[in-house]
Amino acid sequence: MAGLIWDKGNATVDERIMRFLAGEDVLLDQALFTYDIRASIAHVRGLSRIAVLTAEESATICHELTQLEQLFHSGAFVLDARFEDGHSAIEAHLVEQLGEVGKKVHTGRSRNDQVLVAQRLYLLDALDAIVELCVQAARIALERADLGRDIPMPGYTHLQRAVPSSVGLWFAAFAEAFIDDAHFASMTRSCLDSNPLGTAAGYGVNLALDREGVTAELGFARMQLNPIYTQNSRGKFELQALMALNQCLLDVRRLAWDLSLFTTGEFDFVTLPDQYTTGSSIMPNKRNPDVIELLRAATAPTHGAINELMSLLSLPSGYHRDLQATKGPVLRALTAGLDALALIPQLLAHLEFRPARLRAAITPDMYATDRAIELASEGVPFREAYRRTAAELDTLADRTPEASLNARTSPGATADLRLDLLEARLDQIRVGL
Amino acid sequence: MAGLIWDKGNATVDERIMRFLAGEDVLLDQALFTYDIRASIAHVRGLSRIAVLTAEESATICHELTQLEQLFHSGAFVLDARFEDGHSAIEAHLVEQLGEVGKKVHTGRSRNDQVLVAQRLYLLDALDAIVELCVQAARIALERADLGRDIPMPGYTHLQRAVPSSVGLWFAAFAEAFIDDAHFASMTRSCLDSNPLGTAAGYGVNLALDREGVTAELGFARMQLNPIYTQNSRGKFELQALMALNQCLLDVRRLAWDLSLFTTGEFDFVTLPDQYTTGSSIMPNKRNPDVIELLRAATAPTHGAINELMSLLSLPSGYHRDLQATKGPVLRALTAGLDALALIPQLLAHLEFRPARLRAAITPDMYATDRAIELASEGVPFREAYRRTAAELDTLADRTPEASLNARTSPGATADLRLDLLEARLDQIRVGL
Amino acid sequence: MAGLIWDKGNATVDERIMRFLAGEDVLLDQALFTYDIRASIAHVRGLSRIAVLTAEESATICHELTQLEQLFHSGAFVLDARFEDGHSAIEAHLVEQLGEVGKKVHTGRSRNDQVLVAQRLYLLDALDAIVELCVQAARIALERADLGRDIPMPGYTHLQRAVPSSVGLWFAAFAEAFIDDAHFASMTRSCLDSNPLGTAAGYGVNLALDREGVTAELGFARMQLNPIYTQNSRGKFELQALMALNQCLLDVRRLAWDLSLFTTGEFDFVTLPDQYTTGSSIMPNKRNPDVIELLRAATAPTHGAINELMSLLSLPSGYHRDLQATKGPVLRALTAGLDALALIPQLLAHLEFRPARLRAAITPDMYATDRAIELASEGVPFREAYRRTAAELDTLADRTPEASLNARTSPGATADLRLDLLEARLDQIRVGL
Amino acid sequence: MAGLIWDKGNATVDERIMRFLAGEDVLLDQALFTYDIRASIAHVRGLSRIAVLTAEESATICHELTQLEQLFHSGAFVLDARFEDGHSAIEAHLVEQLGEVGKKVHTGRSRNDQVLVAQRLYLLDALDAIVELCVQAARIALERADLGRDIPMPGYTHLQRAVPSSVGLWFAAFAEAFIDDAHFASMTRSCLDSNPLGTAAGYGVNLALDREGVTAELGFARMQLNPIYTQNSRGKFELQALMALNQCLLDVRRLAWDLSLFTTGEFDFVTLPDQYTTGSSIMPNKRNPDVIELLRAATAPTHGAINELMSLLSLPSGYHRDLQATKGPVLRALTAGLDALALIPQLLAHLEFRPARLRAAITPDMYATDRAIELASEGVPFREAYRRTAAELDTLADRTPEASLNARTSPGATADLRLDLLEARLDQIRVGL
Repeated sequence: MAGLIWDKGNATVDERIMRFLAGEDVLLDQALFTYDIRASIAHVRGLSRIAVLTAEESATICHELTQLEQLFHSGAFVLDARFEDGHSAIEAHLVEQLGEVGKKVHTGRSRNDQVLVAQRLYLLDALDAIVELCVQAARIALERADLGRDIPMPGYTHLQRAVPSSVGLWFAAFAEAFIDDAHFASMTRSCLDSNPLGTAAGYGVNLALDREGVTAELGFARMQLNPIYTQNSRGKFELQALMALNQCLLDVRRLAWDLSLFTTGEFDFVTLPDQYTTGSSIMPNKRNPDVIELLRAATAPTHGAINELMSLLSLPSGYHRDLQATKGPVLRALTAGLDALALIPQLLAHLEFRPARLRAAITPDMYATDRAIELASEGVPFREAYRRTAAELDTLADRTPEASLNARTSPGATADLRLDLLEARLDQIRVGL
Repeated sequence: MAGLIWDKGNATVDERIMRFLAGEDVLLDQALFTYDIRASIAHVRGLSRIAVLTAEESATICHELTQLEQLFHSGAFVLDARFEDGHSAIEAHLVEQLGEVGKKVHTGRSRNDQVLVAQRLYLLDALDAIVELCVQAARIALERADLGRDIPMPGYTHLQRAVPSSVGLWFAAFAEAFIDDAHFASMTRSCLDSNPLGTAAGYGVNLALDREGVTAELGFARMQLNPIYTQNSRGKFELQALMALNQCLLDVRRLAWDLSLFTTGEFDFVTLPDQYTTGSSIMPNKRNPDVIELLRAATAPTHGAINELMSLLSLPSGYHRDLQATKGPVLRALTAGLDALALIPQLLAHLEFRPARLRAAITPDMYATDRAIELASEGVPFREAYRRTAAELDTLADRTPEASLNARTSPGATADLRLDLLEARLDQIRVGL
Repeated sequence: MAGLIWDKGNATVDERIMRFLAGEDVLLDQALFTYDIRASIAHVRGLSRIAVLTAEESATICHELTQLEQLFHSGAFVLDARFEDGHSAIEAHLVEQLGEVGKKVHTGRSRNDQVLVAQRLYLLDALDAIVELCVQAARIALERADLGRDIPMPGYTHLQRAVPSSVGLWFAAFAEAFIDDAHFASMTRSCLDSNPLGTAAGYGVNLALDREGVTAELGFARMQLNPIYTQNSRGKFELQALMALNQCLLDVRRLAWDLSLFTTGEFDFVTLPDQYTTGSSIMPNKRNPDVIELLRAATAPTHGAINELMSLLSLPSGYHRDLQATKGPVLRALTAGLDALALIPQLLAHLEFRPARLRAAITPDMYATDRAIELASEGVPFREAYRRTAAELDTLADRTPEASLNARTSPGATADLRLDLLEARLDQIRVGL
Repeated sequence: MAGLIWDKGNATVDERIMRFLAGEDVLLDQALFTYDIRASIAHVRGLSRIAVLTAEESATICHELTQLEQLFHSGAFVLDARFEDGHSAIEAHLVEQLGEVGKKVHTGRSRNDQVLVAQRLYLLDALDAIVELCVQAARIALERADLGRDIPMPGYTHLQRAVPSSVGLWFAAFAEAFIDDAHFASMTRSCLDSNPLGTAAGYGVNLALDREGVTAELGFARMQLNPIYTQNSRGKFELQALMALNQCLLDVRRLAWDLSLFTTGEFDFVTLPDQYTTGSSIMPNKRNPDVIELLRAATAPTHGAINELMSLLSLPSGYHRDLQATKGPVLRALTAGLDALALIPQLLAHLEFRPARLRAAITPDMYATDRAIELASEGVPFREAYRRTAAELDTLADRTPEASLNARTSPGATADLRLDLLEARLDQIRVGL
């Protein structure tokens, strides 16, 4: 392992313990490395503005950091177990390339705020991606809601056939869900949009760091001011991002459950394009909706990670090494969740509903609520109308799904989906980005 | 039990199963009953605006509902196991008092949207309370930060003494934490601020309900449009409110951990007022900081409830009885969490720090970082300055905490807490309410 | 509130803080009160054996404790908010009835081991109940497996029709599940079967307590020896009991999911007796399988409670007040879980499968695996047989479910359910109790 | 990717969806590959015993499988993204090496039981490792308890100094904890010790598989009989293993918390060997107990994985692709947990307690409980003795820790640790393995 940056020349190293300490850290840092470099450049420029580095030193280091980013992207620089972590790798590379000057990069910062700023930038990008994917999913769901507004399908409560519904109503439900999710993710992003760099190990440093300048350069909305709180927010902010992801994935799970049922032989309401199914290793007759099932399972890593973080966050103020263990679950859950979310827009676009099967599943008793409310509108007390209708279910046979759908004229219901209102909320979110 | 509202005259009732079905529902509904009445009044007025009820019928029912609310508050009307739930109790009461007219209250709504609107109103109030308590806590923390800015105390990382810090920095950390929490809770409130009433059992009704009017009367910012999504949001919205609470309670836990350590005989940094301690049943010498420990434990019910909800939310679209089981954990966690949060402002106000003990715990080696950065400012590469300082820790004995605190001039650090910026954020939240 | 037993005459009491401290403790103690009395009797007898109490004092106190148990059961003694907790209530009652002698009951014990022994006895009883209910459920599932062995039903993977199965195979699956659950709960019980009483506040006392005698009198298998560990096991042992419950409830959830699908209009495989369904408040046509859905939801309180406990258990050694907060979730989850479990045996007994519907759902392509394996048995490489069969699915139309079921002769499969082996495991568990 | 084993010649492949489907599966299978090979050999031998394969075919395939295992261990065969999963890799390798004969390996099994048997064997080995490490930790804790029985240290409740304790009592607490953990893990192992192979995709096959023979050859205690239950147990059994691990890690967390406090400057009770500490990147004066903190954090992955599994297990009977997602969290949590556990024995062996510091922290008021109980033994009612002692705390100054420790003679207390009883339990576990 390349020189430990905290080694004062006498570190006793036990191989097994070192491995336990390092864990998978350096591998996880691959996802953060670009952000770390970007923040390092801003830090160095800030140091030159307060004359801790000369303009020349700053330019030299920043140039080398930009080089490093390119080497990393091209694969010429590999971040692996030779390094304790990504932060050490950056410093080691600078020292190797620039000698003495490279040793100056860490002035006025600690790995504690260095990792925080890289993770913060990563979180903001992840939240942007969540917003974008939810917006895409909602956009397609709105289109399909519009196309499906006149296609009747059974509506269920308790998984029992209840009243007539429409394909349009079903798609509009997911449109509104993903709009809410985009809204929440976007607001969460604004909550987290603060710069931790410049707070050192949790108690600041004896320098007049240009935190405003660094904050602006990195595009943050504000400084995270208090150094102790900055450390205390590690894990807490990550949790917030995971919760935003979780809300979307709960809707993905709901969607996957619907499709899992709709594609059974018994319901047979929806056909999945071939690319969403796989075969069995033993049963030649099977086509299985594996993608749907893995989407249903996609909440799990986030659910697990939320608990993994909560388990870690029972600590006094200040940095503790426990907090390093937040990195793995956060990166894994965000990656897995975004992978799942990325499939939703096209899945929604390609679902093939089977109108004849849907219509055939609407039985006459499902008009009973319509009838009871008609009686109530005519002045029969509703509880009375309810009892009377229950006794005459056989009189409903000549009704049609279309008439039932058209009669539901309240805002949001089948005859008045108000897709324009949903679209307007969606546009507001896009503008917000 | 008073008549089951879904009984068509032939319900087979098994006592044990009925008890299992009812659970603690009617008791939990005590917390929702006022909201349920309020929403029922708005619903009835809406029905009269679309002429499903006459103005007279509406006035009669609304008067009786207002009466019921007073009877409930005075204790003259008791919501207990005589009723299946609060919703049935309202209808039963109206029928008992008003006869036929009372049977009209349920026209155009289902218990599914009725319970949702009551819970939604409850959630919004709970979020308001969270915001208010966080604002109070932050306000007091800011005052104490101002008073404590010149009182040195040791700063810890890894629970090891690290660098000098100040009582002001410590209080400011919790001020910023509770400001973030208030901010997040307030934004979460705006996400949930939508009216579910008027979506019936998840598929709307064949009436042109005046949903805009009802939404305005109940003070919601917007309608929750889609009836299927409205049902699908049950549990999801509750989860969002719990997550907002959870963020505050994580900071409460951090605070409690600090105080649990600071009140040990070993640290002995803080004295707790007597009312925050209790005695032992066997050890005559003990005063125990029980309140602090229960505050540390206060995250647990919310953590449990979040998982309890996530466990329930693996379902296809539409209402399922499983969703009823969200009520208990949500009410319990919000109640317990708010009870804990309500103690924080006064606790912060009454903490007595012991300056002499704090100062005595600052040892000379804790100035090493200051020294290394001074060398770095003079042009010594930081990694070099670090090594040199490590070799000369014994040269730091004549430094003082005050000098160290005053030298840290970056925004947010000990010499420049920027309490004004925090105060400004706090004021924005108050205005937002 | 009756005198605080730790009051030395100078307790400052703040009403709001006292309420926060007390929480729901005294109500929860109602479930533990009988156990607390029983353990108090054993403790007092132990004290008399080592001459700390005279035989007469012991007899007097024990008589009064027995009285108290009867008063509690009859409702003449009410454990409510007048007392800080159940432990204080016992001591207060003894002092009130017996004067000075009553004050001797607490010699040599602390509330810390007093509550532990009551909870331990409660946990062991709860585990016994879990075992008993699983055994009952398994017994009935075995009977129904025997009766249903020749009734064909479709077998699903990925919720897609896969191969023919039988009602017997389905019931035998739940029999084996509940046998495993009973086995695990019974072993968990044996792990927890140790007596914490006699370890005081976590460091023992300066008496030669007759712990062996008390352990034997209370029916524990062994002493929990180390006083520190005894305190550290609080929450840990409760977690173990909840995990045993959780395993059963996961099987209950699986069962409920099957029935939730089987009772849809689309599957229509199973009819539920009326007492397991309810109606809708708005839809006159509905009968809803609410019991099934609440059984599916029944895992949630345990899942929540497990996390609530894990959240609390991040502490150094020794008693902390945080541990008191374990009581609520444990009692609630065990009560809710046992209530659900108690419905399973009769539910299994009363399910009505519809043979004609089941048979109609078995389509010819479901014999493809049989065919592929026949070819493989004749020497065609399996992967080749698989491809060949997939190309000839239309040749399978004349096969029957019966032939398919009879051909599966491996142990455990449809033609050889091996119910005798399952019965033998079941008998072993009963003996073990 | 090497041929999909379920491809019938017409699979439509979308690269992005395939990646989502494959996930990290093939990498995770590296941990299971050896077990998969071992079970494949047993399966093939079983097929030859029922004449589905000739003795020669069986010998050829088994020889090749043994080769494959060697190639895998030597690194000559790499299991990577060329394959869909480990199961496909085995079959692909056999076909490549043996042609037609290789295609016969999958006769009578499905990937569903194939993966289950590999995971089951893995789980049993992991549980053995847990037992072994707990036994080692307990053994060393017992030795140190014996050595430390006369070294006084303060005992804490609520983190407040309470009564005198001893280093021996502290070590004995962890000895008993790890004995309980070993006991529970060993019993959990016996619960899971059943063979799933031979149940195919969840409905058996039309062959008379020699399941008894295969079960014996693989060393399982019994067959898992029912094919549906076998599938339903996926995730459930893994959860059980994780819960056994979780119990140990809760004790590790408790231990780490103690050491985290004991190594602060304020307590200063314990010195950690150098290899358990690291330095800071910015503070030259720091040595941080990182290993201790990461051990405290080591519960988190298991806590997360337990929830990740619970999140997945809300499904109807039979195999669903969701269940594949159990693999990652289980392997990661067991690996991380075992890595942490493996450090405990040597850590316990190398802790250096500082007797002078420990003794100095024992203050006279800590003898108050001793005094109150002495009074009680002389006949003063305990509650009276308690009040009297509280009023005379200043009379306790001439007492010694040694006298206090020696007076606590109940079984398990400082004067009678009963290490022999603990040792006896430990020996029983070893024999049980």
